[in-house]
Amino acid sequence: MPLQPVRIGLIGCGRIGRVHALSVTAAPGAVLTTVVDAVPAAAESLGELHGARVAATPAEVLASADVDAVIIASPTATHVDLIDAAIDAGKPALCEKPIDLDIARVEALRGKASAATTPIMLGFNRRFDPHFATLHARVAAGEIGRLEQLSIISRDPAPAPTDYLAVSGGIFRDMTIHDFDMARHFVPDVVSVFASGTAQFSEDIRGLGDYDSAVVVLTGREGQQVTITNSRHAAYGYDQRLEAFGSEGLLEAGNVTDTVVRRWTADAVEVREPYQNFFLERYAAAYQRELAAFVAAIREDAPVPVGFHDGWAALVLADAAARSAAEGRVVEVDLDA
Amino acid sequence: MPLQPVRIGLIGCGRIGRVHALSVTAAPGAVLTTVVDAVPAAAESLGELHGARVAATPAEVLASADVDAVIIASPTATHVDLIDAAIDAGKPALCEKPIDLDIARVEALRGKASAATTPIMLGFNRRFDPHFATLHARVAAGEIGRLEQLSIISRDPAPAPTDYLAVSGGIFRDMTIHDFDMARHFVPDVVSVFASGTAQFSEDIRGLGDYDSAVVVLTGREGQQVTITNSRHAAYGYDQRLEAFGSEGLLEAGNVTDTVVRRWTADAVEVREPYQNFFLERYAAAYQRELAAFVAAIREDAPVPVGFHDGWAALVLADAAARSAAEGRVVEVDLDA
Amino acid sequence: MPLQPVRIGLIGCGRIGRVHALSVTAAPGAVLTTVVDAVPAAAESLGELHGARVAATPAEVLASADVDAVIIASPTATHVDLIDAAIDAGKPALCEKPIDLDIARVEALRGKASAATTPIMLGFNRRFDPHFATLHARVAAGEIGRLEQLSIISRDPAPAPTDYLAVSGGIFRDMTIHDFDMARHFVPDVVSVFASGTAQFSEDIRGLGDYDSAVVVLTGREGQQVTITNSRHAAYGYDQRLEAFGSEGLLEAGNVTDTVVRRWTADAVEVREPYQNFFLERYAAAYQRELAAFVAAIREDAPVPVGFHDGWAALVLADAAARSAAEGRVVEVDLDA
Amino acid sequence: MPLQPVRIGLIGCGRIGRVHALSVTAAPGAVLTTVVDAVPAAAESLGELHGARVAATPAEVLASADVDAVIIASPTATHVDLIDAAIDAGKPALCEKPIDLDIARVEALRGKASAATTPIMLGFNRRFDPHFATLHARVAAGEIGRLEQLSIISRDPAPAPTDYLAVSGGIFRDMTIHDFDMARHFVPDVVSVFASGTAQFSEDIRGLGDYDSAVVVLTGREGQQVTITNSRHAAYGYDQRLEAFGSEGLLEAGNVTDTVVRRWTADAVEVREPYQNFFLERYAAAYQRELAAFVAAIREDAPVPVGFHDGWAALVLADAAARSAAEGRVVEVDLDA
Repeated sequence: MPLQPVRIGLIGCGRIGRVHALSVTAAPGAVLTTVVDAVPAAAESLGELHGARVAATPAEVLASADVDAVIIASPTATHVDLIDAAIDAGKPALCEKPIDLDIARVEALRGKASAATTPIMLGFNRRFDPHFATLHARVAAGEIGRLEQLSIISRDPAPAPTDYLAVSGGIFRDMTIHDFDMARHFVPDVVSVFASGTAQFSEDIRGLGDYDSAVVVLTGREGQQVTITNSRHAAYGYDQRLEAFGSEGLLEAGNVTDTVVRRWTADAVEVREPYQNFFLERYAAAYQRELAAFVAAIREDAPVPVGFHDGWAALVLADAAARSAAEGRVVEVDLDA
Repeated sequence: MPLQPVRIGLIGCGRIGRVHALSVTAAPGAVLTTVVDAVPAAAESLGELHGARVAATPAEVLASADVDAVIIASPTATHVDLIDAAIDAGKPALCEKPIDLDIARVEALRGKASAATTPIMLGFNRRFDPHFATLHARVAAGEIGRLEQLSIISRDPAPAPTDYLAVSGGIFRDMTIHDFDMARHFVPDVVSVFASGTAQFSEDIRGLGDYDSAVVVLTGREGQQVTITNSRHAAYGYDQRLEAFGSEGLLEAGNVTDTVVRRWTADAVEVREPYQNFFLERYAAAYQRELAAFVAAIREDAPVPVGFHDGWAALVLADAAARSAAEGRVVEVDLDA
Repeated sequence: MPLQPVRIGLIGCGRIGRVHALSVTAAPGAVLTTVVDAVPAAAESLGELHGARVAATPAEVLASADVDAVIIASPTATHVDLIDAAIDAGKPALCEKPIDLDIARVEALRGKASAATTPIMLGFNRRFDPHFATLHARVAAGEIGRLEQLSIISRDPAPAPTDYLAVSGGIFRDMTIHDFDMARHFVPDVVSVFASGTAQFSEDIRGLGDYDSAVVVLTGREGQQVTITNSRHAAYGYDQRLEAFGSEGLLEAGNVTDTVVRRWTADAVEVREPYQNFFLERYAAAYQRELAAFVAAIREDAPVPVGFHDGWAALVLADAAARSAAEGRVVEVDLDA
Repeated sequence: MPLQPVRIGLIGCGRIGRVHALSVTAAPGAVLTTVVDAVPAAAESLGELHGARVAATPAEVLASADVDAVIIASPTATHVDLIDAAIDAGKPALCEKPIDLDIARVEALRGKASAATTPIMLGFNRRFDPHFATLHARVAAGEIGRLEQLSIISRDPAPAPTDYLAVSGGIFRDMTIHDFDMARHFVPDVVSVFASGTAQFSEDIRGLGDYDSAVVVLTGREGQQVTITNSRHAAYGYDQRLEAFGSEGLLEAGNVTDTVVRRWTADAVEVREPYQNFFLERYAAAYQRELAAFVAAIREDAPVPVGFHDGWAALVLADAAARSAAEGRVVEVDLDA
């Protein structure tokens, strides 16, 4: 007997919610049945597009008999309560990162989340990017021996609007959070954090007391070194790279273009296409594979590949980075606590 | 009112038929309703996989009320008759290349095919490869000025079985046929053909009186030069490249890998992943886009992007190449005839 | 006892003569003692620059006691007589290509040249380019198994002045001549030639009855295929590439830049430096290594690496190409004759 | 009147001394007249090779009438005294890095060195590498706008012998010292240092209390961030790279090969040649250009491009890095002191 598709309720119909709706519709094993948003018009238009019912509240979604699992793509401040409610409702949830900007709120839910049998998956999509996933698999297979140094370069094309940045929690919680998770994907047992932040080019960001440029050095339990380089802008587009150095070699995943076409003209030679820009394009496949992993975990009753603990750990590292940058010293962390 | 999906009947359930079945199932605007194959078991297993009915004969498929269009993926020798029947049935057809190995049979149908209003599309899938299509579009947009020289490199990983090669029509009709169409995609008005073939490494191929290596030089009406380089083997995998040289520059499409990961180890540096191997992998996207183009032409009542004339022209060039290689001289062709 | 430097007399102080003068001065084992040119001022200024005596005639150079060997860099029409005189004088000669534009004059000297014990070296500098020489050595070492197909791409940045082209002997004797020699460097036993030439972009060249674009296909005794692609212009600079395909792989030598620096900006990513432009820059190292090979052959009483026979063979191929292009047929050649 | 060559006395005939001797002999404007070494046989063999007189002591070299300038390539512990003596003798000196491992000894000479009119140049050869120098010049020319982040990757093929490492002063003073100078070449006004060191793979190095892996983050006065990544080993060879990120783009200088040849075989595609290995090969051109710059500064009575202050500053940064790594905190520096 063929498996029934997993019926998905989507909470939050903004930009990232619409990405998830598309992934659900395209996935062979999932179907979007219900949507909800604080802005009813957003829910209605998305529901119409995908043939999904519009619910009045997230609670209604969680209580629906035709919803097997939910995707939480609503504002960050709602995540903790919705995860809590999903656990109570026994509905598997895929929640966008971060869990919350306030570690205290995350800590408060941590015991319950770790005890829960309901799958709670965190939306660290980059783990599912085919390029990074392949690099990770090849490191895991021992192709470069023992991993010693990892370099993560992550630069946005341009800063988000200042209004957004003002409530973003700062560069470490908003932007580097992805890189902290990627670091832990390779080196789970991070024991210390050093971070340096400067505001070099944006008066707006400086005015917020935030950084537009950051470098982070993480140290693993066995001495591994992870370097993260961030900038809120990059003239040449979205810059997303990994470089893993091990005792027997190096693996690199550079930037991605749509095709392999290159050009030679009088002004420039060997020019590749512009990079995929921005995260919706660059990580389109990652979002689809993330959803597939969520569906597979539900169907196979298997652990989710990225869980609540990972969301908590990334936030612990972000908080430590903020403190390190402010105090000019290494901050030790205990991710086994 | 949303468009109804185009209901497809598939004639031929071999390797390439199964590729088309997958494309149809994945396409938003098409549905596979009927399949047929000379080997009933092949049709039955594919029909079951895709939820399609099994017909007894191609004629039954063409006569079915729930078949809006057909894909002809049966052996080459059946193509002419099936195209003929599709025209009679008024059913749009996407037919695998080549139309036939015998130009006389193709000529016999040519008048009828060109007069027909039923869309007849030829399966020159490489035109739809995203890399080559992008390169073509950029040439067409004038990025390198006037096109002066085009280099097509096309090498298979290894020769097909000798049994297959014995009835393949020879390297020019079997393998180079794709490159002839690609040449005409850039330079439609080819006026002369020179070809050189040698059997350098395969005693089997030499025994068949065929070539395992070939170089072809085509000349366009305005003096453009197209060079095709073929080999029936390549130690490093499927080698599929284009290089377009124009008055203002050059565009290149090199080989394709699944990801951008590269490695550095003691034995080799900057090593990319193995190339996508073989055509089912390398041209997976091309087959899907080809099907999408067929469906779009039907729905929009628009001309098919590759038609019977193109299938005929490729075969004319293949015949001319065989003659040129045998006689050691340039063979003129008239593709406007 | 350290070896005495080889004392060089330079016949011809034009552009290429000045390159050779520089090579001699820079070489540890050679010294420029004498120069001569039909234009006395040219000889005088070059002589002053390098501290060399100015002779009145080539014959005086050949007769000089302080000249151990000569470099013939005078106009092509003088080469045959000067080689002849160098043999008579027993002075080793490095002669610029081509030996002559008229094969009959070359044939007339051939017997004497092949019988001579005086080293006569032909200036096919590209054999000495470090990139091409390395590729050649790796092919010779068997790294890609048996060589099956060789692609030579050779495009100039822009056409030479029409006055020059008018007396150049045509594209095959003037430009492709280098590629014919490179072809023979890999596949000495060429047995047939096909050539296609068109005038696509230059009305001047068309007016001369010459071609601005050419494709040549050479066939080796064992079926190897060599493709040469020429253009008299290239918007992106001097395009000089080799690609050797063998039974076990492929080796490529692409274009050369001064440094490995690449740039990423808003308009273009992964842009390399402009290519070295033109032959004086691109082949600077080749000229020096060529001179070193000449000096080494003299000192070690060893055969020159490129001799009169090679100069003759290249011209035979050029003539065959001209005939092939005119007649639209393969022209057979016998380089063992 | 042509310039007389600068007559050079070489103090120290070990590995790096021999490199300098070669550079002097190859330079048009310099001649090696005198050599000296604590091991007389070393001086004698090098003197014989280059036709230079052997002196008994460095003092004799400095006092020689036929010595216009000296190169100090003796052990590090002798540098301070020899620079001091060179100033007293009024003889320009090119001194190998570091000035000393003990900042106190460097400080003691600092006032005298900065007041001296005798050119004292420090041997930070990498500034003269053509690739890095080109990248630096393009940054300086504004090609990528304002420099915001610089990444320096520097990995040795394998650790030096433990005996050497034991007296090397530690990774920051011995290896990173080059990178500190490169950092200052781009961002002279470094204001703070963070360093992280671990011993991940070498028990020997761990036993010395030293690090085999290091990451350093420097901050410039205007917030620029420089990241240095070091390892004492790299399976794929000498890894020497720069990446400069600015407000308008990025410039990269990757690793260097002898030729542009790449290979494709069954086991690996697009493989470049092994990297130039080790510093004598990779920086061969840099040593020659460094010598040329020294000679030019003497002849033109111009400031040396890298002076005593730079040697001092690099050591200040190395000391700060050692302290930072030990204490887990940012160390502020004042390079204007």
